[in-house]
Amino acid sequence: MDFKLRGKVIFFATNNVHKFDEVRSVLVKYGIAVGMLRVKAVEIQNEHLSKIAEESTRDAFSRCHLPLIVEDAGLFVEALNGFPGPYAAYVYKTLGNAGLLKLMENVANRKAKFQSAIAYFDGVEPVLFEGEAHGEIAFEEKKKNAKSAFGFDPVFKPLDDKRTFAQMTTEEKNSFSHRAAAIRKFAMWYKSA
Amino acid sequence: MDFKLRGKVIFFATNNVHKFDEVRSVLVKYGIAVGMLRVKAVEIQNEHLSKIAEESTRDAFSRCHLPLIVEDAGLFVEALNGFPGPYAAYVYKTLGNAGLLKLMENVANRKAKFQSAIAYFDGVEPVLFEGEAHGEIAFEEKKKNAKSAFGFDPVFKPLDDKRTFAQMTTEEKNSFSHRAAAIRKFAMWYKSA
Repeated sequence: MDFKLRGKVIFFATNNVHKFDEVRSVLVKYGIAVGMLRVKAVEIQNEHLSKIAEESTRDAFSRCHLPLIVEDAGLFVEALNGFPGPYAAYVYKTLGNAGLLKLMENVANRKAKFQSAIAYFDGVEPVLFEGEAHGEIAFEEKKKNAKSAFGFDPVFKPLDDKRTFAQMTTEEKNSFSHRAAAIRKFAMWYKSA
Repeated sequence: MDFKLRGKVIFFATNNVHKFDEVRSVLVKYGIAVGMLRVKAVEIQNEHLSKIAEESTRDAFSRCHLPLIVEDAGLFVEALNGFPGPYAAYVYKTLGNAGLLKLMENVANRKAKFQSAIAYFDGVEPVLFEGEAHGEIAFEEKKKNAKSAFGFDPVFKPLDDKRTFAQMTTEEKNSFSHRAAAIRKFAMWYKSA
């Protein structure tokens, strides 16, 4: 049978369904099909997301030998010297939004940014793509519904909008988000590669 | 010249002078000489200190090929679901003691523990040694002087003493500390090995 794949395919190594949905909804617009690869890749401790993603993609590739991407994200709060930074997932799990809001009590400077680093690897050299979303830490949690509450989204309000990430649809969040910005850069490169 | 080393020698891969001093002051009692090895070993993200130490010791060894130990420590606060855990150094650097005290405002359960994992590696298989110190988070920072302030020591009060770690001499702290407990286990094993 003569079978030709229309468009391109990529594997995304993640165990996070929210991340996967966000990434898929961007890639579909570029005609790129994406498969979720539930491989547990090593993450190193490092203050640079791109370094973490680069090492993870090498590790994930060594386990499955498929061309793949990994993504590492962080939340950097200016008044907290960049905390929680690359450890946002751990901090969310232990302190939650309530803990972050407590740290921000009586803090006037609410500036924060989300960053995303995506690393592609197919066995040769990792290729990196980065995205940022600037905004501020809200004074209280705001979300559409329980399902929409992914990580610190309920307390992060991007510039140029009154809503937190958790009050937006995936499409709306993608118009602002660090992850969507990074994945769009990847998609443009991957289509032309 | 006929030269014989009296006792044993070990290298400790660390960039932390405080840790090195604590470790040296224990090892000297066992007749073990210790050299400070300023090698930057990779640390992985993991909630188990022993896993972090094990991977670090492999990485450090691959860079210098000397029999060595690495140590990884964490502070686990019960009411904060174990936060800051293995990321204590990063959290100290960004939030400091003030941040931890803010998170503990109006929190009645002050229980906390320091844990230490030491991994020895000489190219064969890592050997692990662990220590713990149980105590509580003080209501304010207490320290002898600026020099004595190492990490979260000014807010950690071990059980069976009224002082924080930062109010003690190295000798006194070693009688309680997680790190000294782990290094004593290593010393007894290393002397007999």
